[in-house]
Amino acid sequence: MNLIEGGVCAAQGFSAAGIHVGVKTHATWKKDVALIVSDVECAAAAVFTKNVVKAAPIHVDKAHLANGRARAIIANSGNANACAPNGEENAEKMCAAAAKAIGCEAGDVLVSSTGVIGQTLNVGVIEAGVPALCGALEHSAAGSDAAAHAIMTTDTEKKEAAVETVIGGKTVRMGGIAKGSGMIHPNMGTMLCFLTTDCAISPAMIKTALLETVNVSFNRISVDGDTSTNDTCCVLANGLAGNAVITEKDGDYAAFLEALQTLCTLLAKKMASDGEGAKHLLTCTVSGASSEQSAETIAKSVISSTLTKAAIFGADANWGRVLCAMGYSGEDFDPEQVEVSFASAAGSVAVCAKGRGLSFDEDLAKKILTEHDVEILVSMGEGDQCCTCWGCDITYDYIKINGDYRT
Amino acid sequence: MNLIEGGVCAAQGFSAAGIHVGVKTHATWKKDVALIVSDVECAAAAVFTKNVVKAAPIHVDKAHLANGRARAIIANSGNANACAPNGEENAEKMCAAAAKAIGCEAGDVLVSSTGVIGQTLNVGVIEAGVPALCGALEHSAAGSDAAAHAIMTTDTEKKEAAVETVIGGKTVRMGGIAKGSGMIHPNMGTMLCFLTTDCAISPAMIKTALLETVNVSFNRISVDGDTSTNDTCCVLANGLAGNAVITEKDGDYAAFLEALQTLCTLLAKKMASDGEGAKHLLTCTVSGASSEQSAETIAKSVISSTLTKAAIFGADANWGRVLCAMGYSGEDFDPEQVEVSFASAAGSVAVCAKGRGLSFDEDLAKKILTEHDVEILVSMGEGDQCCTCWGCDITYDYIKINGDYRT
Repeated sequence: MNLIEGGVCAAQGFSAAGIHVGVKTHATWKKDVALIVSDVECAAAAVFTKNVVKAAPIHVDKAHLANGRARAIIANSGNANACAPNGEENAEKMCAAAAKAIGCEAGDVLVSSTGVIGQTLNVGVIEAGVPALCGALEHSAAGSDAAAHAIMTTDTEKKEAAVETVIGGKTVRMGGIAKGSGMIHPNMGTMLCFLTTDCAISPAMIKTALLETVNVSFNRISVDGDTSTNDTCCVLANGLAGNAVITEKDGDYAAFLEALQTLCTLLAKKMASDGEGAKHLLTCTVSGASSEQSAETIAKSVISSTLTKAAIFGADANWGRVLCAMGYSGEDFDPEQVEVSFASAAGSVAVCAKGRGLSFDEDLAKKILTEHDVEILVSMGEGDQCCTCWGCDITYDYIKINGDYRT
Repeated sequence: MNLIEGGVCAAQGFSAAGIHVGVKTHATWKKDVALIVSDVECAAAAVFTKNVVKAAPIHVDKAHLANGRARAIIANSGNANACAPNGEENAEKMCAAAAKAIGCEAGDVLVSSTGVIGQTLNVGVIEAGVPALCGALEHSAAGSDAAAHAIMTTDTEKKEAAVETVIGGKTVRMGGIAKGSGMIHPNMGTMLCFLTTDCAISPAMIKTALLETVNVSFNRISVDGDTSTNDTCCVLANGLAGNAVITEKDGDYAAFLEALQTLCTLLAKKMASDGEGAKHLLTCTVSGASSEQSAETIAKSVISSTLTKAAIFGADANWGRVLCAMGYSGEDFDPEQVEVSFASAAGSVAVCAKGRGLSFDEDLAKKILTEHDVEILVSMGEGDQCCTCWGCDITYDYIKINGDYRT
C-alpha cells in the first residue's frame, strides 16, 4: 500500500470542485460549497452522528441511501442547516440543484452542511451557484484541493489523503477529504468526511467496511468532548478499478479494509492535530490491557481529560492527571500495576511505575513535551491488548475561537 | 431555616484551626493544615470519589468510619497523598498526631489531602506542626475561617456556609467548609467538604442523609469534567443541640435533610462559581422533563459542554451549542419540543422554541450574558419534572492555571 496524491480525485472516474457562492457572507474569498461527482453510479454508504439533535441533511441522506447507491455529494460550509427553518426542504433543494447540473436523479445525490446551528440556510445562493460549481469540476488533485477547502470552518489546514493498493490483481485507489476542528469527540462520525474509491464492492460490504473503519479511526479521536449535530462520513465506490466485485469478507475485503483504515486513520490524526487552537497532537497508547475495549476506554479518557490537555499545553509532565483520567474512565483496573511514559521525537521518559511516581529528568520531560507530536504511553500490566487514541492540547486560542464563534 | 455565620464552628461544641506548617514549601504565607474537633464524640459519615485511583487518606477514612463514629478531621493542602510512596502510612501518621494532641484514639480521626498527585507527603512537617495547630483551635468563626483557608489550593475564595433550623423543638445548627476549583465533575464528592452539626442523629441516618444530599448538590456541579482521586465529603454530628436522636425517616429527619441540602447546595454553588479561572456561575435548569433523572442528565451535559462554556465566556448567545449538548447527553427526547432561554439580573431572552431559532435582541442577549450569574433555562415539553445543575465558563485563566500546576 502506498500513500498517493489526489485526495477524492485520486481514484479513477471522480471529479471535484469547490467555490464561493455566498453562504459565508462575511468572507467572500472563502470557498463555501463543494461538489464531488463520480462518472458512473456508485455503491455508497454513510455513518452519521449519534446526537439526538440531527441536522436536516442527515435525514435526507438516510432516505437517499436506502438503495445503497449514489453518484455525487454536495456540501456547504458556513451554516449547519441544523435546528433551522425549512431544513429538509433546503437540503433537498441542494440535491435537486446538483442532480440537475450533473444529469442524475436527486435521490442519487448526498448532502452535508457544517457551520452555525439554528440559522436559516440561504439555499438560494447555493442553487444559483451550482452551475458554476459544476463547471469547475476537475478530475485532478486541484479539484480535490478546492473541495477540501470549501468544507473548512475553523479548520486551519485542509484535510486530504489518498492511498493505493492492489486488490484482486488490480490497482485500487481511494482518497478522502475531511473537515473538523471543534465539536470532535468519539461517538460516530464526529466530523464531515467524504471518501471515494474505484474499488468494485457491493453496497452491503462497503457499509460493513465503513462501520469497521470509523470505529477504529474517527471514533478514536477527541478535541473537546462535544459531538456535533452534523457528523457524517460517507463513501462512494464506483468500481472502475475493474477488480472482481467484493461481496463477502474474503481476502480482497481484508485488503480493502486495511487500505480504508489506513486512509481514515490519516484523516483522523489530521483532525486531532488541527483541533481548534491546538499546538500539539496528543497520542495515547494503552497496552498490556485485558481487552481492546478496555484499552480504548482508558485511552479515550486520557486524551479527553481537560486537565491532561492543559498540562500538555504547558509542557508539564503532570502524570498524576493521566492516572486520574484513567481512574474515572469507568474501567476497573489495579492502579498499582500501571506504568506511564511520555515520548516524542526528543526522546522518552518514564514517569510512573507500579502506580507510583519515579524521579525523572524534568528538563528532558519539558523538552519531550515541547515537541508538536507528543505520546503518552500507558502500560496496564494486565494482559496483551492495546489501543491508540488521538487528541490535542487545549489552548487560549480554543477559547478565543469558541468564545465568539457566531459573529 | 436561617443562614448564619460561623462555618464549621457554627454548631455547638466544634472548634477549628488552620496554620502553615510547610507542606506548601513555596508559599510560607499560605496555610496548609486544617483541624476540626468536636468536644465530644460524633456520629460520622463520608462519601468518597468513585475514581478507581483513590488517594491514601480515603482508604484510611473508610477503616476509621467502620464504627460510624469520629471526633476530628485533619486535612492538608499542597500534596494529594495520592499515587505517592508510603501513602497510607503517612495518612495514619497524620491521624495519630492529631489524636495525641486532642486526646482521643487515632481511629476517631478522619484525614484528607489535596494538591499535587504522586509526590511523597512531607508528613514530618505536619507531625511537628500539630501541637501548634491544636493550640490554635477556636470555637468561633475565626477558627472556621482559618480552616477554610488552610484547605484551599487553586481556590480564589474560601468556601464556607452555615444554617440554623429547629428540629424537635431544639435549635440545630450546621455548617461547612469546602475546597474545590478544578477536577470538579458530577461523580460523588468531587472536592473536599467538611460538615459539622450539633444535631443528634444516628450514624445510619446521617450516612443516609449525606448520600441523599450529595446526589442533589455536589453531584450536580461540574467545572472541567475531571473527577479527582481525593474527593471526600464528610460530616460530624455531635448531638449537643439536645434534640431527640433521629433514628428513622420521620419529620425530624426531613427537617434535618432540608437544612443539610440547603447548606450543601450553597457550598456547591460556591465551588462552581470559583471554578478555576471562571468569570461566570452558570446555572442550567431543565424543566418539563419526563423524569428528574432525565432532566439531570441533560442539565449536566449542558453545563459540562466545553463549547457552551466557551460561548458563555464570550457572552455569545450560541444556543445551538446548548441543543447540541442536550442531544449527546445520552437521553432520548424530541428536539422539536425544546425551548431555550438565557436569563440573568439583566433580564431574560427566549432564543429557541419548538427546536428552532427565534429572532432575538442580540444586544440584550449580550447584556444578559455579561452578568456574573447566568442562567440557561431549558423546557423539554415532555412532562413536569425538573432539575438544576451548576457550572462555570472556561477561560484563558483556566488553561494558564492548569498548564503549569506543579511548578
